Amino acid sequence: MFDLLVLVTYDVKTTSMTGQQRLRRVAKLCQNYGQRVQNSVFECIVDATEFALLKIKLMEVIDQEQDSIRFYQLGNNYKNKVEHFGVKESLDLEGPLIL
Amino acid sequence: MFDLLVLVTYDVKTTSMTGQQRLRRVAKLCQNYGQRVQNSVFECIVDATEFALLKIKLMEVIDQEQDSIRFYQLGNNYKNKVEHFGVKESLDLEGPLIL
Repeated sequence: MFDLLVLVTYDVKTTSMTGQQRLRRVAKLCQNYGQRVQNSVFECIVDATEFALLKIKLMEVIDQEQDSIRFYQLGNNYKNKVEHFGVKESLDLEGPLIL
Repeated sequence: MFDLLVLVTYDVKTTSMTGQQRLRRVAKLCQNYGQRVQNSVFECIVDATEFALLKIKLMEVIDQEQDSIRFYQLGNNYKNKVEHFGVKESLDLEGPLIL
């Protein structure tokens, strides 16, 4: 099965302790499949089954009354669809970026 | 020429006044072509020429020593590639979302 790039973007009011906790849990889940590329942007490499599972897990973590989460499917030919400018690392990034 | 969905994700230290100012300018530029869907995520509908122009303008605004900006090309058949869960609006959103 093809591996696909799925971008997960997440907006949470991190002014609250519980919001920060949810963001950490979202990051941790996504990092099982890829990595954090910006504070609230995660690039996950998944097949269709993993993507479905990841979505279910993320739904259990986020607060749909307060948070916003978006999934963008970039397909399997994703390397030429992503461009980066500026700094590449932030304090909480783990591992290398795709780009 | 086809209209393409380009996702612009932007990370800036908004703890500083100048960072907040840059984020506002990035949002304003992107809103000429689409809209803000999360605090630092913008969906722009552009053709290839507009995309090139938008990138040049954004490069003039951001601080490449401090900020991180990423562009994701979702092509022209983008409507079934985007999924949203949770709240759809934040205080600074203008206009309806694509989804």
